[in-house]
Amino acid sequence: MSTPSPFLYSIIILIVSFLCQASAIQLNGARYLGNFWSSSRTLSLRAPKYQYETKYFQQKLDHFSFADLPSFSQRYLINTQHWEGPSCSAPIFLYCGNEGDIEWFAANTGFVWEIAPRFGAMVIFPEHRYYGESMPYGSKEEAYKNATTLSYLTAEQALADYAVLITELKRNLSAQACPVVLFGGSYGGMLAAWMRLKYPHISIGALASSAPVLQFEDLVPPETFYSIVSDGFKRESMSCFNTIKESWDVINKVGQINGGLAQLTKTFHICRELESVDSLSNWLESAYSYLAMVNYPYSTDFLMPLPGSPIKEVCRKIDSLPDGASVLQRIFEGISIYYNYTGKVDCFDLNDDPHGMSGWDWQACTEMIMPMASNRTTSMFPEFYYDPKSNEEQCLKDFHVKPRPTWITSEFGGHAFKSALKAFGSNIIFSNGLLDPWSGGSVLEDVSETIVALTTKKGAHHLDLRAATAEDPDWLLDQRSSEIKLIRGWLDEHYDKKKAISAYR
Amino acid sequence: MSTPSPFLYSIIILIVSFLCQASAIQLNGARYLGNFWSSSRTLSLRAPKYQYETKYFQQKLDHFSFADLPSFSQRYLINTQHWEGPSCSAPIFLYCGNEGDIEWFAANTGFVWEIAPRFGAMVIFPEHRYYGESMPYGSKEEAYKNATTLSYLTAEQALADYAVLITELKRNLSAQACPVVLFGGSYGGMLAAWMRLKYPHISIGALASSAPVLQFEDLVPPETFYSIVSDGFKRESMSCFNTIKESWDVINKVGQINGGLAQLTKTFHICRELESVDSLSNWLESAYSYLAMVNYPYSTDFLMPLPGSPIKEVCRKIDSLPDGASVLQRIFEGISIYYNYTGKVDCFDLNDDPHGMSGWDWQACTEMIMPMASNRTTSMFPEFYYDPKSNEEQCLKDFHVKPRPTWITSEFGGHAFKSALKAFGSNIIFSNGLLDPWSGGSVLEDVSETIVALTTKKGAHHLDLRAATAEDPDWLLDQRSSEIKLIRGWLDEHYDKKKAISAYR
Repeated sequence: MSTPSPFLYSIIILIVSFLCQASAIQLNGARYLGNFWSSSRTLSLRAPKYQYETKYFQQKLDHFSFADLPSFSQRYLINTQHWEGPSCSAPIFLYCGNEGDIEWFAANTGFVWEIAPRFGAMVIFPEHRYYGESMPYGSKEEAYKNATTLSYLTAEQALADYAVLITELKRNLSAQACPVVLFGGSYGGMLAAWMRLKYPHISIGALASSAPVLQFEDLVPPETFYSIVSDGFKRESMSCFNTIKESWDVINKVGQINGGLAQLTKTFHICRELESVDSLSNWLESAYSYLAMVNYPYSTDFLMPLPGSPIKEVCRKIDSLPDGASVLQRIFEGISIYYNYTGKVDCFDLNDDPHGMSGWDWQACTEMIMPMASNRTTSMFPEFYYDPKSNEEQCLKDFHVKPRPTWITSEFGGHAFKSALKAFGSNIIFSNGLLDPWSGGSVLEDVSETIVALTTKKGAHHLDLRAATAEDPDWLLDQRSSEIKLIRGWLDEHYDKKKAISAYR
Repeated sequence: MSTPSPFLYSIIILIVSFLCQASAIQLNGARYLGNFWSSSRTLSLRAPKYQYETKYFQQKLDHFSFADLPSFSQRYLINTQHWEGPSCSAPIFLYCGNEGDIEWFAANTGFVWEIAPRFGAMVIFPEHRYYGESMPYGSKEEAYKNATTLSYLTAEQALADYAVLITELKRNLSAQACPVVLFGGSYGGMLAAWMRLKYPHISIGALASSAPVLQFEDLVPPETFYSIVSDGFKRESMSCFNTIKESWDVINKVGQINGGLAQLTKTFHICRELESVDSLSNWLESAYSYLAMVNYPYSTDFLMPLPGSPIKEVCRKIDSLPDGASVLQRIFEGISIYYNYTGKVDCFDLNDDPHGMSGWDWQACTEMIMPMASNRTTSMFPEFYYDPKSNEEQCLKDFHVKPRPTWITSEFGGHAFKSALKAFGSNIIFSNGLLDPWSGGSVLEDVSETIVALTTKKGAHHLDLRAATAEDPDWLLDQRSSEIKLIRGWLDEHYDKKKAISAYR
């Protein structure tokens, strides 16, 4: 089982677009991250805390053609314990599974489980095709065999899966009158928002948390993501920011000298000797990006076991070393907060499965083309530009597939996305924590009276969807309470309308 | 080239579902209709009256997967003569091509051409994939080879074709700010309405003429279509209605006697001796259905050269024969109004290409599952029930494909279609002539302030989209004038909003 990061590959892509002009080794470096991520998951995927049944539903592999393809078994988790049933038209809470094992998302989306009982709601977590157990062609090996078998791994197919599943499920339960409320975080949040736009008959509202629906084409500046990551470090300490900014040149210089790679390997406690400087850079870059995403106010183990406000901790480490400490030593100590907070790791394995490919790699090489860049003025990362051409070359090389960079904007709306939402959409919450680098590609201002932005200055990547903890700060409690109020409002309005119709009859 | 009828196959399907329980020959009989239709088109497709350039655009064969498939060349007709250009944000009128050669639709949709100049609008008629010249795999022969090659002939793919084409075209012309207004008749009207729902960012409004978007699953009673056809005859004359109602038994009885088929062949001037009674029945049934569709107030040659109010003429013939005339003689004289109004046909060829298959056959065996039935109380047709099972068997036999009867309702909304439209849609005109049997499956009442129904008691199948004639009755002039006013309103509102936004900035 492999569970890629939400948007991991976007990060890979941007690194690749920067690095692959220099050498192909960089891409392998990027791949190490994927593997790291797979490994890290074993740390973070615990036995599910929530009660559900695991069921399976036969889905068409291609909803939009009639090619004679084998159907596949989509897994979904379901809990009807608190559901007040079809006679009450009780709601159905549906989490739009994203790029990973659905049990992992279920375990990390406590908010949905926690609020369902007070709404008398059914909870359902369908898994995204090509992830977890929901594998076409019977196994991950077969599903990920080549570009042909992978070709049905698209967002549109996943949306259709959810539409067909919930329609059938409601029919079987005579629950056609039960309103569906969608939830989703990150890519799952994009799916929830897009579902509102594309399948308005399926649901009455969506909570789209940390959903960068605008991170396509030129809808937001490509520097956005890395500027926000960098801001997170700058905010904690200017010297921390500068140390990281300096470090890339230092690493490159050391890497170029005789025995330099061995020296870097030693300094950074890498298990196997580095083959290139880039693999180290990628490893560091992704840690900074993830740190910004999971810069939660209390300790978590969403991606890795981490202290609360981990960027503060990383910067404290970097800054607190004695004056004589080298830049590299500072970076190593800082990054260890991310990669080795438990202190149990002796050495870091950047390459435990060089051939492992995640589904998100594929998605980021086909539809999910999110241009990213880094500029020296706002970013602590090395300067690089988004280069669609080298991206395309790399995807052709890796997957024999050509990216379609304008498809998502044609399908879901590009510059007209917000105005289409305003005119046609309703009942969407775009929730974002502004520490989260993905927030820059999301919707941060109210679009209409019912399509609202809930932002928190100190929140990170879909923090609101996580389970309540004793340490939740007031602003987080407020955000969740606003969400509950809005969802309650959608349901009340829905029931009022129904009542009005039946009274009229 | 083959051009199937709008909804021809629905008629075939219902006949099939009635007849195929009895014998497989019935289906062949139904196929004759397809061939008839191909032949009739050569009569009705004239040199286009309107000026346009013919262009081609490379389209993905499957927008929703990344399977390595050949792209295909989509034909589109374009006229920019009256277009006031991107600097004026002048509108683009786009006709959603339906199941046939686009030149034929262009020639028969005079309304769009006639009103474009007064709006300063560009006109574009993209062709529907798998029809006319827009053939995947290089030729109709290859495209229609088997279920695999045909599998990408779906409404969703066609909608995506239009979305991608217009997005690219606008980009190339720097016309991103130019609002698109959609037009469509019959299946093309369904596409236009669905496009409003699925691609709200692409257009600002749609005129969906005679679009039976509700003719799916159990959204309307399956008897609707045939009851309306029958009403058209009953309205003209009760005795005409009764003669037709009686005729089926007479035909069956004659067919069963020795030499009966030869006798029927002679009576109905069929070129080659009938192989079954059913092929004759199908031929008659389809004529009655088409007569109801094209029951226009003045003479036309849309499907066939016909007099104005052709049902009145058919009934006049049936009723006016001397008292001693047989039922069959009456039927033959009546039907000759439809099949031989010019009087030039010596004999009728029901079977000039038994292997010809139209694209609509495929669509009606896959997505476009429109249940139909006929009951003795309201219909002049033989009684039959909709039988999904035999329909499925037939489709498996004919195309090796299994219909998906609940897909369209899952994808576009079933019972919730209208309420989804009300909540999420805007700016759609559902125009219908109530003589048209397809009107029963369309939207006949206003859904909201901006989704309006324009019905005319005496109108037939998308009459409003036809070119103006000197004989246009007042109610038709009124209908078209309402349409123009509504379209003008959409555009004014669009420009006002744009102005407000730029003033605000």
